[in-house]
Amino acid sequence: MHTRLQLPQGASCFTFDEARRRRALEAQVISVFEGWAYDEIVPPLFDDAATFDPSLASKLYTFTGRDGTTLALRPDFTSLVAKIAAGRLLQVKAPLRLYYSGEVVRYEPPRAGRQSEFHQMGLEFLGGGGSAADIEVLVIAIECLEAVGVTDFVLALGHAGVVTALLDEAGFRDSDPPRQAALESLNRRDPAGLVRALDAVTGSEVARRALMGLAEDDGIRQSISSARQVLGGVGRASAALDDLEAITVTLERAGLGGRVAIDLSESRSLDYYTGVVFRIYGGGLGFEVGGGGRYDSLLEGLGRPMPAIGFMLGLDRLTLLVERQVTAARDAVEAPAPVHGNSLAERVLDARAQRNRGARIRFGDLA
Amino acid sequence: MHTRLQLPQGASCFTFDEARRRRALEAQVISVFEGWAYDEIVPPLFDDAATFDPSLASKLYTFTGRDGTTLALRPDFTSLVAKIAAGRLLQVKAPLRLYYSGEVVRYEPPRAGRQSEFHQMGLEFLGGGGSAADIEVLVIAIECLEAVGVTDFVLALGHAGVVTALLDEAGFRDSDPPRQAALESLNRRDPAGLVRALDAVTGSEVARRALMGLAEDDGIRQSISSARQVLGGVGRASAALDDLEAITVTLERAGLGGRVAIDLSESRSLDYYTGVVFRIYGGGLGFEVGGGGRYDSLLEGLGRPMPAIGFMLGLDRLTLLVERQVTAARDAVEAPAPVHGNSLAERVLDARAQRNRGARIRFGDLA
Repeated sequence: MHTRLQLPQGASCFTFDEARRRRALEAQVISVFEGWAYDEIVPPLFDDAATFDPSLASKLYTFTGRDGTTLALRPDFTSLVAKIAAGRLLQVKAPLRLYYSGEVVRYEPPRAGRQSEFHQMGLEFLGGGGSAADIEVLVIAIECLEAVGVTDFVLALGHAGVVTALLDEAGFRDSDPPRQAALESLNRRDPAGLVRALDAVTGSEVARRALMGLAEDDGIRQSISSARQVLGGVGRASAALDDLEAITVTLERAGLGGRVAIDLSESRSLDYYTGVVFRIYGGGLGFEVGGGGRYDSLLEGLGRPMPAIGFMLGLDRLTLLVERQVTAARDAVEAPAPVHGNSLAERVLDARAQRNRGARIRFGDLA
Repeated sequence: MHTRLQLPQGASCFTFDEARRRRALEAQVISVFEGWAYDEIVPPLFDDAATFDPSLASKLYTFTGRDGTTLALRPDFTSLVAKIAAGRLLQVKAPLRLYYSGEVVRYEPPRAGRQSEFHQMGLEFLGGGGSAADIEVLVIAIECLEAVGVTDFVLALGHAGVVTALLDEAGFRDSDPPRQAALESLNRRDPAGLVRALDAVTGSEVARRALMGLAEDDGIRQSISSARQVLGGVGRASAALDDLEAITVTLERAGLGGRVAIDLSESRSLDYYTGVVFRIYGGGLGFEVGGGGRYDSLLEGLGRPMPAIGFMLGLDRLTLLVERQVTAARDAVEAPAPVHGNSLAERVLDARAQRNRGARIRFGDLA
């Protein structure tokens, strides 16, 4: 292909069946969001670069606005929705249940097939505090997967408080670069990286051992009680476990125990999470299809303090997951009906009559 | 509002009823596109700046890709879709009927409420030549307006060949800056501007008078026969009128004569149009809600020569138009049903049972 006909690195493009499947999945997920009385928000494609979480700074596509400010294409929705809730929607009474569906853009190091554009569908329950809100969001996430026909999936639950408490006790300070390195090592399940990060600090031996346990463990099969043993001495981690236990007990009683697992190494990579965090994994896919968590401090920083929790699904990944798991015959697209007539005008009349009856037509390429 | 909570100039944001109306309108328009057997294409948000029509160059939001190339947020879809058809979709047999729905971004001079982001829904009939394709696209455009309940609207038809022939005969060369100035004066209906542009060239007096007639006329009430008088001596303009006449005769025979009017000053501002061009006007709105036209040379320049015609509707403007014209009581959004239960787990069970029956629920904010 001639170079000038190629799309830029990381640019995505969908057509035909793939586009059709994506649009159908989007509609199913949005129907679940609306079924739980969430209202849509369509935020701008770009905003001041400072709006977005610092942990995403290296992934921003930035450009200079005509007034000289540094703008960035949105790399996620949560910060932007929170800012709008604290600004433009200040007069709208909380709680705000908002959902979104649109593109985000992140610079990813050039690798085979790595995209820069992703379509995310998600929701934010702003003002949603306590277990009821946690449960609401987790149950909606479960329903989304069910709605698109995925049967083999699990929500891996962690708690930002566990990892935060352990990092604090292990001697990491809030703004330390080694703290970020330790977090990333945990997310990558990279014990060697964690050892290097731990070498830079001194602190509680119990916390250090617990962190190493999280980095070595595949985590997902942990029970709350075994976690209590590992985290024995770390008080604040224990409080976080109580939170998690309340959630899992409720879901078990509601018959959804099989949909969740505990993964204490789960901390998400974004800085703003404060409570329960989760990733959604589907059988047959080697990476999560979405995730979310509680962020109770973000809105305070924007001058409208309230608790909040949200989650998102990646449309591209969800499409892959559905392809893997949903083997039922896809609704074949009905072949369009031909249009008849002896003249162009007669064919227009026939086309309009068929369309009035709801038919899908092909006007035809004969002149 | 604190400055850091404001959105950047030109950024758009929709919520609640407005977002709901937009999504509903988008679904109705897309349903028409699909009803005529068009397939969706989801092109990238950005591409090499060189992809886009030169007449849009001053409106591009550009940034530097990580590999040093100059990228731009897409300012329209047509050039991008044509490029993809000539590149990635080269193996897909023509004709290609493709539709899109998404955001475009254009820098607009800062004025009260002027947006930089627009949502466009449109289609491209690539490989569609001759009157049948012209008619197909015009009839689809008409059906889109009807489908959303708009009753007072008209498609103002012009022909790129008319204005091109007149400009040529009046003495403008292809790459002259005065030619662009003359085009813009015509689009603005600005006779004084046109006089200044004409001062820079010498050519046929008939063509000059015809151009002045177009700039002075409000155009939309012209008949083909009166146009023939005005354009008497300009041969190529006459051929373009034959094209237009064939279209209007067919639409009249199909009972759609009331949906179109002739406006020979209509030339669109994009350089790539070669045949019929049109704008869609709705009563109560002082600007067009969409438009399109035939561009038979664009794909040749990309190495895959074929005729093509397309059109688009602006979702924001369509929403305004529907608000003006569709007074029927809007479907009030059904109030969500409350969820009951003595414990959180029982409420989850009730919520899931109601959702299974398709109910819209509010899980409630009580813990």
